[in-house]
Amino acid sequence: MSRIAYVNGQYVPHQEAGVHIEDRGYQFADGVYEVVPVRHSRLVDEGPHLDRLANSLAALQIAWPVNRPVLSLILRELLARNGVADGLVYLQVTRGVAPRDHKFPAAVKASLVITTRRTKPPPAALLAEGAHVITIADLRWKRCDIKSIALLPNVLGKQQAAEAGAYEAWQVSDDGMVTEGTSTNAWIVTADGLLVTRQADRAILAGITRLGLLRLLKEHGMGLAERPFSVAEAKAAREAFLTSSTNFVLPVTRIDGQPVADGRPGALARRLRQLYVDGVVEAI
Amino acid sequence: MSRIAYVNGQYVPHQEAGVHIEDRGYQFADGVYEVVPVRHSRLVDEGPHLDRLANSLAALQIAWPVNRPVLSLILRELLARNGVADGLVYLQVTRGVAPRDHKFPAAVKASLVITTRRTKPPPAALLAEGAHVITIADLRWKRCDIKSIALLPNVLGKQQAAEAGAYEAWQVSDDGMVTEGTSTNAWIVTADGLLVTRQADRAILAGITRLGLLRLLKEHGMGLAERPFSVAEAKAAREAFLTSSTNFVLPVTRIDGQPVADGRPGALARRLRQLYVDGVVEAI
Repeated sequence: MSRIAYVNGQYVPHQEAGVHIEDRGYQFADGVYEVVPVRHSRLVDEGPHLDRLANSLAALQIAWPVNRPVLSLILRELLARNGVADGLVYLQVTRGVAPRDHKFPAAVKASLVITTRRTKPPPAALLAEGAHVITIADLRWKRCDIKSIALLPNVLGKQQAAEAGAYEAWQVSDDGMVTEGTSTNAWIVTADGLLVTRQADRAILAGITRLGLLRLLKEHGMGLAERPFSVAEAKAAREAFLTSSTNFVLPVTRIDGQPVADGRPGALARRLRQLYVDGVVEAI
Repeated sequence: MSRIAYVNGQYVPHQEAGVHIEDRGYQFADGVYEVVPVRHSRLVDEGPHLDRLANSLAALQIAWPVNRPVLSLILRELLARNGVADGLVYLQVTRGVAPRDHKFPAAVKASLVITTRRTKPPPAALLAEGAHVITIADLRWKRCDIKSIALLPNVLGKQQAAEAGAYEAWQVSDDGMVTEGTSTNAWIVTADGLLVTRQADRAILAGITRLGLLRLLKEHGMGLAERPFSVAEAKAAREAFLTSSTNFVLPVTRIDGQPVADGRPGALARRLRQLYVDGVVEAI
């Protein structure tokens, strides 16, 4: 497969696609990103993804490298060039290239890098068995609402999960409350049957799948509490699941090795996955 | 000036020096760095800098891209090629290039990028007047002892300082205690005359200049308390100063716009700067 990447105005072979060593993304993690799922050659929830990109850029005072309609066109062009019908598009905006100095450079053009990837549906076994998660201390900074590329703590957390044979790590703040996974949002159905996910404050990233699911819950008149939940509450839960742009809704069946309820994917999680796939992913 | 950079085994013109878009330094801030001062064509405190690099690499489980003696040779070669006698060398190691996935890739070679820069002595006015600092909330993660390239909060803090007309921002944790500057360590001489700097725990980076100064203080039988100090204590202090590899020892004369004591560089700060320049910088 001869993949093409988009780098600052050029469509270039992926293998040769480079950025300058003094790109502030490389020296300072001074940038933001989005991952947008692609289904039947269409972008899933493009609007909310680009809205969030706008928020991230504004939070860091980075100007759009190209305007939003042009970015939309480039995303489509790159998908077409790579023949990606089902997969994802990854886009990254950094403050640009400048001699190394912490403070914002005076005149600099933001960098834009975009790649695409074909993906397969999640393995049937993962959906049938559900994902296993571990809990770890949340080491991250205090502005997790910004989708920045400063992902080192997320990398370390995901690696800890992988070494424990788990799919994801749920991060836990000092007060014993779950914030979110390293690249996914966390949900439970409490022992009392209440669907709970953390409110979107500065401690978590407001996931686009999370947002879509909130909309669906409202449309279907289904209840929800947006509040923190503890590790103990999660371990005593009736169901657990995670959401993300690449996983949609994925049941969680073990937490720190302990089965959630009977250790099988929960009925509500399965139903919400179906609702999400039908109502958002296939509805585009 | 035709500058040369070192990138993964090659000496290349700075302007053309690039890394792959899927270098994990660019996508995940999955890497570490060092800045080593250069004086009279010699590296200042090279040993401690490379010791700290070893610690940072070990903390992230990144292998040395080249072994330590070879790295030393490359640093010298690059300084010679660029004719840098007084300035600094910047080196960055990332986990390497791999398809984007949070967890560590199975087989990957760490990336190594090195640049050099000529620098001038700090302006006489800055030394004569001292630096102004502001205090800001410390938003960073919980492993500031690792010298990682996930520097986005430091960038935002330094920018806040610049916008306030200050030289540096001192970061303050939830308990009201100063941790450190965005790229410097923080010191005060209390109203009682006690020299204080924060202990090197996970909340700060163990600065090499800080370390050198601790050694000098010991050699000269001068007292010191390694403990946190509050913003209030700093504002009531007799003196304040900051340390870093590029600033050595720099008096701080205003905090949040208020003069420290009489607003002039303190006697101990000036003495320690002289001791450090004579005993470490010029002694190499």
